[in-house]
Amino acid sequence: MDKDIIQVILEKESSIKNPILIEGFPGIGLVGNIASQYIVNELKMTYLGAMSSKFFPPLAVLLGGVVNMPVRIYEDASKEIVILTADVPVHPLASYDIGREIVSWAQSINVREMVCLAGITVMSDQHRVFGAASKKELLDKLKDMAEIFELGTITGITGSIMNECRIRNIPAICLLGETASAEPDPRAAIATIETLNKIYGLGVSTSKLAEQAEQIEVQMAQLAQQLRAAQPEEQQAQMPKEFPMYG
Amino acid sequence: MDKDIIQVILEKESSIKNPILIEGFPGIGLVGNIASQYIVNELKMTYLGAMSSKFFPPLAVLLGGVVNMPVRIYEDASKEIVILTADVPVHPLASYDIGREIVSWAQSINVREMVCLAGITVMSDQHRVFGAASKKELLDKLKDMAEIFELGTITGITGSIMNECRIRNIPAICLLGETASAEPDPRAAIATIETLNKIYGLGVSTSKLAEQAEQIEVQMAQLAQQLRAAQPEEQQAQMPKEFPMYG
Amino acid sequence: MDKDIIQVILEKESSIKNPILIEGFPGIGLVGNIASQYIVNELKMTYLGAMSSKFFPPLAVLLGGVVNMPVRIYEDASKEIVILTADVPVHPLASYDIGREIVSWAQSINVREMVCLAGITVMSDQHRVFGAASKKELLDKLKDMAEIFELGTITGITGSIMNECRIRNIPAICLLGETASAEPDPRAAIATIETLNKIYGLGVSTSKLAEQAEQIEVQMAQLAQQLRAAQPEEQQAQMPKEFPMYG
Amino acid sequence: MDKDIIQVILEKESSIKNPILIEGFPGIGLVGNIASQYIVNELKMTYLGAMSSKFFPPLAVLLGGVVNMPVRIYEDASKEIVILTADVPVHPLASYDIGREIVSWAQSINVREMVCLAGITVMSDQHRVFGAASKKELLDKLKDMAEIFELGTITGITGSIMNECRIRNIPAICLLGETASAEPDPRAAIATIETLNKIYGLGVSTSKLAEQAEQIEVQMAQLAQQLRAAQPEEQQAQMPKEFPMYG
Amino acid sequence: MDKDIIQVILEKESSIKNPILIEGFPGIGLVGNIASQYIVNELKMTYLGAMSSKFFPPLAVLLGGVVNMPVRIYEDASKEIVILTADVPVHPLASYDIGREIVSWAQSINVREMVCLAGITVMSDQHRVFGAASKKELLDKLKDMAEIFELGTITGITGSIMNECRIRNIPAICLLGETASAEPDPRAAIATIETLNKIYGLGVSTSKLAEQAEQIEVQMAQLAQQLRAAQPEEQQAQMPKEFPMYG
Repeated sequence: MDKDIIQVILEKESSIKNPILIEGFPGIGLVGNIASQYIVNELKMTYLGAMSSKFFPPLAVLLGGVVNMPVRIYEDASKEIVILTADVPVHPLASYDIGREIVSWAQSINVREMVCLAGITVMSDQHRVFGAASKKELLDKLKDMAEIFELGTITGITGSIMNECRIRNIPAICLLGETASAEPDPRAAIATIETLNKIYGLGVSTSKLAEQAEQIEVQMAQLAQQLRAAQPEEQQAQMPKEFPMYG
Repeated sequence: MDKDIIQVILEKESSIKNPILIEGFPGIGLVGNIASQYIVNELKMTYLGAMSSKFFPPLAVLLGGVVNMPVRIYEDASKEIVILTADVPVHPLASYDIGREIVSWAQSINVREMVCLAGITVMSDQHRVFGAASKKELLDKLKDMAEIFELGTITGITGSIMNECRIRNIPAICLLGETASAEPDPRAAIATIETLNKIYGLGVSTSKLAEQAEQIEVQMAQLAQQLRAAQPEEQQAQMPKEFPMYG
Repeated sequence: MDKDIIQVILEKESSIKNPILIEGFPGIGLVGNIASQYIVNELKMTYLGAMSSKFFPPLAVLLGGVVNMPVRIYEDASKEIVILTADVPVHPLASYDIGREIVSWAQSINVREMVCLAGITVMSDQHRVFGAASKKELLDKLKDMAEIFELGTITGITGSIMNECRIRNIPAICLLGETASAEPDPRAAIATIETLNKIYGLGVSTSKLAEQAEQIEVQMAQLAQQLRAAQPEEQQAQMPKEFPMYG
Repeated sequence: MDKDIIQVILEKESSIKNPILIEGFPGIGLVGNIASQYIVNELKMTYLGAMSSKFFPPLAVLLGGVVNMPVRIYEDASKEIVILTADVPVHPLASYDIGREIVSWAQSINVREMVCLAGITVMSDQHRVFGAASKKELLDKLKDMAEIFELGTITGITGSIMNECRIRNIPAICLLGETASAEPDPRAAIATIETLNKIYGLGVSTSKLAEQAEQIEVQMAQLAQQLRAAQPEEQQAQMPKEFPMYG
Repeated sequence: MDKDIIQVILEKESSIKNPILIEGFPGIGLVGNIASQYIVNELKMTYLGAMSSKFFPPLAVLLGGVVNMPVRIYEDASKEIVILTADVPVHPLASYDIGREIVSWAQSINVREMVCLAGITVMSDQHRVFGAASKKELLDKLKDMAEIFELGTITGITGSIMNECRIRNIPAICLLGETASAEPDPRAAIATIETLNKIYGLGVSTSKLAEQAEQIEVQMAQLAQQLRAAQPEEQQAQMPKEFPMYG
């Protein structure tokens, strides 16, 4: 791994031999990060450490008064899952390099399958989940579980990770929760988690997420707005008006 | 070859001793990539591998639910042709470096002749095909086959490739399909393929492309729009409303 | 430390074995630098030296006709405090690198605790002080002293320093003075100093700052405006209309 | 010479021991390149090779259907002249580096004198030619041949070359053809060639250039417009409506 | 000294053991360069050489038909003064690096004191001269000679040089001629020269500068405008309508 691009700081090594690695970075509808962070909370996953990079926006995330690294790694040893979840998006110009490093790290922990979670705008009111794979054989996994993503493009960090997995022959699946607009969409995250449950038997209950859906929409929108509104000439701290999405 | 600029990842080595290399990158009228990808499908060419570069936009192209590398290499051993076809354009600032690497790679596979496919705006309604060559002797190949491109400029990746071939004394021909506007123009691609058939005896039937011309125009325009509309702050996936241009 | 990023030029080495390092860079409300520079004056702290970096805006600050380095280091040996105070903000693009170097330097002087001072916009008229910590155990220090900063983000140099301290397991606290707008806010600085007094027993009287509050607002606003108004094509010197905030 | 900046690709070495090197890059009025290319044609100079650089716009120039390198080197052994003529301008940000490399190359071919051709806007209707020199002694050459350029600035590649020659003590003269606007001005080129004839005894007839003046203005304006209009997202080829300026 | 940043090309070594180095770069009111170049002319100083840098705008300055390097070094051995005078401003982004190299060069010629000349906008009609120093002891030199510059900022190359001298403990004084606007102000230059005379006993008569004040304003404004108006796509030469400011 290239330390000039990403440093992985583990407080605890993973105990899983060949994990499934699920990644969720902020993207359209914030589907990936809402879903992944929710799974971390529901399964009470073990915190392993964080990724740090000069290419991540320079920002500390506060949670209960304590600094939370913005890009975090967790595991659930019994389900053999490692989750990489983030509060900050990857800038498109950094996608290629960051994507390569994340896949290199995945190889270093002997990942057996990569799962990318993201949103997709399809201009409808439904909450379908679309699936794509790094190779044809993996489509069987998706059959009857998700709609096949026949033709289109995936940009950004998820696109870069899928390309790298294809190049390096690492099995990878992408689940895309349908969302209508750019606003945070916990219901798209719910649909995506339910598809994950079907494919991987995670058994994560989405009822809490459904209850909090409205509250989360407000909160996530404020956090996202803080990110966008960060003024270049001033450091600043901001606090959203509502808060617990985090358990 | 400079791995910091392009990596060539072959799943299969080319079996051709001195191939003709045909390249088609997206450009005006999308002539180059429509034509090259169509030939790949019609001749049912063998997939060899892909090119990956930090200078290509970070995006995964989905086809039938499977990740397709955006810059792909195919061969048809019987016709001794290798095709380099792409779904992503090369940014002008990267043209020089990418052009040099592509020509270096062409040398490494002992190419005997390079053929570049592109569009040309000549403000008319016709669908002529213009030809240019890296040296005078090659003009004979073009005589009666295409209109000679007497005076003008070719910018971007095709211009860089033609210059590099001239510098390194690799025979190269450029075929430019006349197109009226910036919109995808499958009919310009048809004219270009027919000229290729005449010069190289490819025997590619263009009837299917003619049937699909209208459908392709819509589809390619949507894909091109997705590329342009890719929002910097969000990763996203998009699906066009119509789809099969790909066989 | 990486001399290409920051050079630390000490005229005098620190005499403190394990100091508390307090940093105050210009940010929203200029809370950090007003507070830190005021403490330096009130405690008549000893000047140790300065930090120089190509990433700081190229500018000399004049004080009483003498060049003042814009990023300065002082100590008060009896209270075991080192202060890093600045007249220039750190550009967000440089936050990551500068933050890392500042924390490396803090480690090199065997800092036992890092304290970051900044402002926070909470859209109210109060002058509360919010606290955050690099780890849970430190929250006890903040209990009853400051409001816990439950959820939100801290950007810029303070965010980068807090993240680095978290990564390197250096105890760090951040005190954020509530301010209503982007204008210099000495009253937020007063509240922050009083919280520091409560936590660390500094005993710094804020009465002078209260007297001068109005004068300082005008002066700091002018200095900040000079920074923003610095014309790229011309070097220039500017003098604010009012002046002594500095003792 | 620094190959990362310019590569010189000679198909034929120069046979001249200490040549006079005349350079003409596109600039105001396109005086330099119209004049130098015309001299190449009239004297039927021998093509030696080309310069290639990542700092030149990526573009192939087509002439009679054949790729013409945009920056070309010719010689006339009997008159002991080497000409460096270009179809592409040098971007100001690249002037310093390109200028240094061109002068290094000039030293490598043992140039005895450098002559730069350019345009100058003096807001009049005349077609005077102004002269400048790298050192005082060379002014004698210009006396009675051209108006002395008493005070002013020369920017871009010509300015960088004149500075480098001054620094390295290579005799250099600059001839500036007076032109009224930014449009191509073959009549300014004619005046400049006639001054060259007087100083160096070139004996180049300008009658053909006078005949073609109108046609050239149109053609060069179209070519220049193609350069400016090159769309970043698309490679393209363009053909001007009129054509032969080239013999 | 770092040759990638500045090269010093001396045609003649300085004969002074520990000179006073006076620098005058174009800045607000063009005070620094008008004053320094005028002193060079009045004292008929000996030309030593020039500085060249990729960070200086690429431009040749013509004077009496001969190329003048834009950043020039002169000495007056009897008065033990070296002057660094420039026709081109230093871009703010280059100030830090250029300032460090200039001060390194000053150290290499064993400078005993650095004097920076610049302008200052104080929004009045007067022509006072303000002074600042790198350390407190030097203020005595300025007492009764200039107004002490109590509080403010100096940006650009002068600010960078003053900071570097402070860091490296090289005695440095800055004289700032009060000017009302951005226009060239020879009268501010006159006031500054007279202050220099008082402090250093230079004995430079300013009468000629007073006579020419109006003519110089016009001329310098035209030269400055040429610098700003230099079109990126075209090299160009320009000649101002009036001319001798230079003796």
